[in-house]
Amino acid sequence: MENSFGVQQMKAFGWAARDASGVLSPFNFFRRATGKNDVQLKVMYCGICRTDLHLIKNDFGLSTFPLVPGHEIVGIVTEVGTNVKKFQVGDRVAVGALTGSCCSCNNCTNNLENYCTQFVPTTSGYQPNGEKSSNFGGFSNIMVCDAHFVLRIPENLDLDAAAPLLCAGITTYSPLRYFGLDKPGMHIGVNGLGGLGHIAVKFAKAFGVRVTVISTSPKKEMEALEYLGADSFLLSTNPDHFQAAQGILDGILDTVYANHPIQPLIDLLKPNGKLVFLGSPQKDPELPVFSLIMGRKMIAGSFIGDLRETQEMLDFAAKHDIRPEFEVIPMGYLNDAMERVAKADVRYKFVIDIGNTLKET
Amino acid sequence: MENSFGVQQMKAFGWAARDASGVLSPFNFFRRATGKNDVQLKVMYCGICRTDLHLIKNDFGLSTFPLVPGHEIVGIVTEVGTNVKKFQVGDRVAVGALTGSCCSCNNCTNNLENYCTQFVPTTSGYQPNGEKSSNFGGFSNIMVCDAHFVLRIPENLDLDAAAPLLCAGITTYSPLRYFGLDKPGMHIGVNGLGGLGHIAVKFAKAFGVRVTVISTSPKKEMEALEYLGADSFLLSTNPDHFQAAQGILDGILDTVYANHPIQPLIDLLKPNGKLVFLGSPQKDPELPVFSLIMGRKMIAGSFIGDLRETQEMLDFAAKHDIRPEFEVIPMGYLNDAMERVAKADVRYKFVIDIGNTLKET
Repeated sequence: MENSFGVQQMKAFGWAARDASGVLSPFNFFRRATGKNDVQLKVMYCGICRTDLHLIKNDFGLSTFPLVPGHEIVGIVTEVGTNVKKFQVGDRVAVGALTGSCCSCNNCTNNLENYCTQFVPTTSGYQPNGEKSSNFGGFSNIMVCDAHFVLRIPENLDLDAAAPLLCAGITTYSPLRYFGLDKPGMHIGVNGLGGLGHIAVKFAKAFGVRVTVISTSPKKEMEALEYLGADSFLLSTNPDHFQAAQGILDGILDTVYANHPIQPLIDLLKPNGKLVFLGSPQKDPELPVFSLIMGRKMIAGSFIGDLRETQEMLDFAAKHDIRPEFEVIPMGYLNDAMERVAKADVRYKFVIDIGNTLKET
Repeated sequence: MENSFGVQQMKAFGWAARDASGVLSPFNFFRRATGKNDVQLKVMYCGICRTDLHLIKNDFGLSTFPLVPGHEIVGIVTEVGTNVKKFQVGDRVAVGALTGSCCSCNNCTNNLENYCTQFVPTTSGYQPNGEKSSNFGGFSNIMVCDAHFVLRIPENLDLDAAAPLLCAGITTYSPLRYFGLDKPGMHIGVNGLGGLGHIAVKFAKAFGVRVTVISTSPKKEMEALEYLGADSFLLSTNPDHFQAAQGILDGILDTVYANHPIQPLIDLLKPNGKLVFLGSPQKDPELPVFSLIMGRKMIAGSFIGDLRETQEMLDFAAKHDIRPEFEVIPMGYLNDAMERVAKADVRYKFVIDIGNTLKET
């Protein structure tokens, strides 16, 4: 069947938000049929990311409804386009936060698809045919995606465990690698121990890096040290902790969405140290220029990762047996799960068992 | 003669500020006698840096008076300590903004004396003997300095031309090198065309880097393009200029002390681009976190340079015939010159002819 843009389509179903109320419910829709460069997959699991919550509530003012969230998608290939040589039916694959980019700009041709100014977000971008409706994400039975944006899941990585790596995993792996914070013997800080933070600790430890977890929550101390294997813990609300730790860190991954001052974090850095934001606080903090100058310190941001690097991350996770902490939930629990994400009441990710629990309505 | 700390001293004279009025006048004082690790030099020229103005007006609240400014010092060796093998009487030498550091910390042992937390500023630090009086700077007849902090002036670099390189030169050379903005074919921006900015343009061009000068002053356009050899010019007050130049720069050296927003500068950067502050605006700007994240952009600071790098910079300047733009002035013009520095009415540096015009009173 063709849509008004002349694109062949097929039926799909999932759960969507119909407006910014934040409530999701069953939804029937059309996806484009598998094109010659596409891979079609049956979705088995999909992780929930905090960004999904922001999108269904239209916190960025960019959402178009109905909106099917989900960009930590894993599944099994059910069809491949005629040009696709890399995958075949039955392969275990994944799709992350990107499903397209211009493929011709300087970023795209340098393996930086995630920084292409025309990248297509999996859940809120435009269809490649120019149709101005949302792309539909992974909270659905099937997914269709250009093969370039499809990842292979290594054999010894479980499908459910792979899901959170597609966004939370690569978002922490990429800056550790790009900013050179992956050298054995280094010492980094991870600010915030949530979906991103807990995976950051696991990757850093696998690189042989010493990790200090920084958190506003005293109850995270035992969790960080005894369960996740962090080396030390700083309570954000305790100035003495910070005073004692000045100048000890090579870098900090900042995963905290809540507003927070950055001077105390800058003070923890050695000269040449790097503070890397992975999420944007609601209000821009003040930039302590003098402190940057006197220690040649650096503040940067990092956004997911490119496709080559995402595959590298999945392979690294498989090789080093890095498994995110997550709770598998049925589709029917989705709205409850979203409320718990809003309250940060999750240890540390939700993964929806789409394959077994999503029912056609 | 010995001071109350048991340190051998000798007579010296120069010009000092006695209080925060900003007025300088002739001043007789004592320096420590040449120690076994020291070099003594007859000062021939000394550059004026904007920091000298801040120090004599106590803008940082850290000045101790009387204060002899001057940290762009060149001269001829007149005496060396018994342990000093590197220099001999008659050598053409220089002293910059650092005259000491702890020499044992991780920074000092890694050629990062400028980031040692106990570094001794040339004009406002404490004497190495622990005496809590200011060090006296280069607006004086003689200088005594530990040989480790003394640089050699290459043969084909004029003494007067070398002076501005000791602070303004290394402050721009170091970040171009450290942040990898020295690769032929790159394109950088230089925000502000003053003492720092004009030397930044010269170094960048010598590296084979394309340079865009960014300034609030339309009259700097012809100067930048026709005289200094910059490749293009952006007027800070013209949004159209900025709009047309989005995403074109690999890096920006920001030399502007006046308060200014940084979002427009961040927007000029390519992904992975770097904005490096060389001076601290009076008010900390807002940090545009989202823009950093979406382009993996970076904001950093840089503070002068280490000793090894400062020598490298002098050698590079000599080899590539890089000569700062400066006006040579007699000692008696010092207060007028300071007033002109305050008004940015200088093209682009003042260098005091100390050797010929400083008279003992």
